[in-house]
Amino acid sequence: MYNDVLALTEELIRRQSVTPEDAGCQQLMAERLQAVGFTTESMFFEDTLNLWARRGTGKPLFCFAGHTDVVPTGPLDQWTSPPFEPQIRDGYLYGRGAADMKGSLAAMIVATERFLSKHPQLNADIAFLITSDEEGPFINGTKRVIEVLEARQEKITWCLVGEPSSTKAIGDVIKNGRRGSLTGYLTVKGIQGHVAYPHLVDNPIHKAAPALAELASTEWDQGNAFFPATSFQISNIHAGTGATNVVPGDVTLTFNFRYSTEVTAEQLQQRVLAILDKHQLKYELNWVLNGLPFLTDSGALVAAAVHAVDKVQGFATSLETTGGTSDGRFIAPTGAQVLELGPCNGTIHKIDECVKVADLELLVQMYELILEQLVAA
Amino acid sequence: MYNDVLALTEELIRRQSVTPEDAGCQQLMAERLQAVGFTTESMFFEDTLNLWARRGTGKPLFCFAGHTDVVPTGPLDQWTSPPFEPQIRDGYLYGRGAADMKGSLAAMIVATERFLSKHPQLNADIAFLITSDEEGPFINGTKRVIEVLEARQEKITWCLVGEPSSTKAIGDVIKNGRRGSLTGYLTVKGIQGHVAYPHLVDNPIHKAAPALAELASTEWDQGNAFFPATSFQISNIHAGTGATNVVPGDVTLTFNFRYSTEVTAEQLQQRVLAILDKHQLKYELNWVLNGLPFLTDSGALVAAAVHAVDKVQGFATSLETTGGTSDGRFIAPTGAQVLELGPCNGTIHKIDECVKVADLELLVQMYELILEQLVAA
Repeated sequence: MYNDVLALTEELIRRQSVTPEDAGCQQLMAERLQAVGFTTESMFFEDTLNLWARRGTGKPLFCFAGHTDVVPTGPLDQWTSPPFEPQIRDGYLYGRGAADMKGSLAAMIVATERFLSKHPQLNADIAFLITSDEEGPFINGTKRVIEVLEARQEKITWCLVGEPSSTKAIGDVIKNGRRGSLTGYLTVKGIQGHVAYPHLVDNPIHKAAPALAELASTEWDQGNAFFPATSFQISNIHAGTGATNVVPGDVTLTFNFRYSTEVTAEQLQQRVLAILDKHQLKYELNWVLNGLPFLTDSGALVAAAVHAVDKVQGFATSLETTGGTSDGRFIAPTGAQVLELGPCNGTIHKIDECVKVADLELLVQMYELILEQLVAA
Repeated sequence: MYNDVLALTEELIRRQSVTPEDAGCQQLMAERLQAVGFTTESMFFEDTLNLWARRGTGKPLFCFAGHTDVVPTGPLDQWTSPPFEPQIRDGYLYGRGAADMKGSLAAMIVATERFLSKHPQLNADIAFLITSDEEGPFINGTKRVIEVLEARQEKITWCLVGEPSSTKAIGDVIKNGRRGSLTGYLTVKGIQGHVAYPHLVDNPIHKAAPALAELASTEWDQGNAFFPATSFQISNIHAGTGATNVVPGDVTLTFNFRYSTEVTAEQLQQRVLAILDKHQLKYELNWVLNGLPFLTDSGALVAAAVHAVDKVQGFATSLETTGGTSDGRFIAPTGAQVLELGPCNGTIHKIDECVKVADLELLVQMYELILEQLVAA
């Protein structure tokens, strides 16, 4: 039925699954998948519900991945219609999660149902890895499920993540990787004192400035065919008590790298330390590696997805690695091929989030075409 | 009487004149001065009481200047004895304002009384310019009194400020000037955005860093015989919301110059603007000129003060312009010779502020010697 995917998307939007709540979304998905032969497993870690559903055992494994949780609504009075009451206006379905990513989840289910109804014989297994912790701290979601799968040597061959990758028309962009994200928390130390006694102070802002200038102007790499050049951004800097006549004792900074596969986190760390040391700073520096870069530059999944977009839309998709990180970073290190293909992302996380109703059906067709190429016998 | 000055200092300390309160100090001083021939005028501006007392009209004018207000006590339980109950221990008089500067005020009064009792004929007039707004915002104190005096063309020839100029022994340092103080409030503007989209942001911290490095390493002048080199200090810098993945839209800074008579505030402003413009920053910059530099490098007042210290202490004083600014900055621009000579400043503004009891008498002697050289017929 044409409206399968719309109805399921609406059902999912009605469940108020503000992160890390799942609010029954996974139960609904599990029931639909069980009905077409999937074995489902709920994995509850701390505050996070995860669903692992698999159909078949032992063959290469195609996996849909996604999340049921949504970001908070923001001010309710700014929404044209209530965010958890799906409403269609002018061909768009409005509601929190419509684009990120309950539309994708519905399309995955419907595509799988349609595909299985046509293909009794399969060359691969199918799985769903669904979390309710993608919009939150992503500690107890995909990361933990992958740890369980790795422990029992259950491997994903191809993984299609339903993140809203598209920009102007559905399918125009497929994410075939993401940059790494590395954050540094830096404190440069000096000696506090009164501005009128400059010989008694050691101004940490003055000490830090040339080092920051060098960090900001450094070329970390030139990127490559798939990644833009590694970028460095200082996001926060704070020093001083507010008094105009006191030189502060230290200055604290936060900076972040979004980095390509041309460098490693270790190399970036060493180069930062070298610059700080060259400027003879006294400092403390703590690092958080938010995500490793990953890339699926070619292979059967890429070929299938490119073909699917071309067949449904009549244009060539663009493979890109720009933008923030995603749960793909936890799946790619297992050796899986990973792509992200989903709705247009112009309204995600915003007031009046929406998805074009017609796009939901196009997405079902793309997902089904990918299954046909990779899973059908 | 030997103890005149101690008793008067104690009486002043008992008056709880936390800035901008005067708490009756000026009334007490006015009564003592009226008794020896002074005409006194109270000038009340907003929250600030000021005293202008003058003896004689029309001759060159020697003026004692000072303040009756004191800084807050800080935690009372940390004081060894209550801050407004003067107490002598081991030769030191303890109490808030003992050194800054009720001891000086008492010494001025007692020196004037003793001097007048010996010298019926004078070659100069004597005045007192006393405020209760030196430790506060210094808007309604000495500045306003000087405006009144200027308006009626009443000129001070020599001004001795009772600020605690001494360090190890009373009289070891006389301040014969102060550096200027110029504060800048700078906002460097950029374009806010997500760190993952560096082409869409314009990081104001990155833009500012090389300019700050240049400002911090610039030699503004080399000072001169009386002033150390002009110093530049950034006292505050703030940017960022705390989120590690957002490039902030602007960075705000506060900086301060302490500057010599080798440069003007206008020159410093122009040079800062030139550096900011050279680095192509977009910015807003507001200036506050806290005080002009001033210097009394020679003249009758310097000669009298140097002689007085030598005669009382047997050592040569040191003329210095270091340290913070003082109310002298409001008096010097009228053309007056201005010096600061007062108690040792090691405990000022601190818990258990104190003055050596013997120093009070030495200060009376110095002040009296200065009066004899400049005012006696």
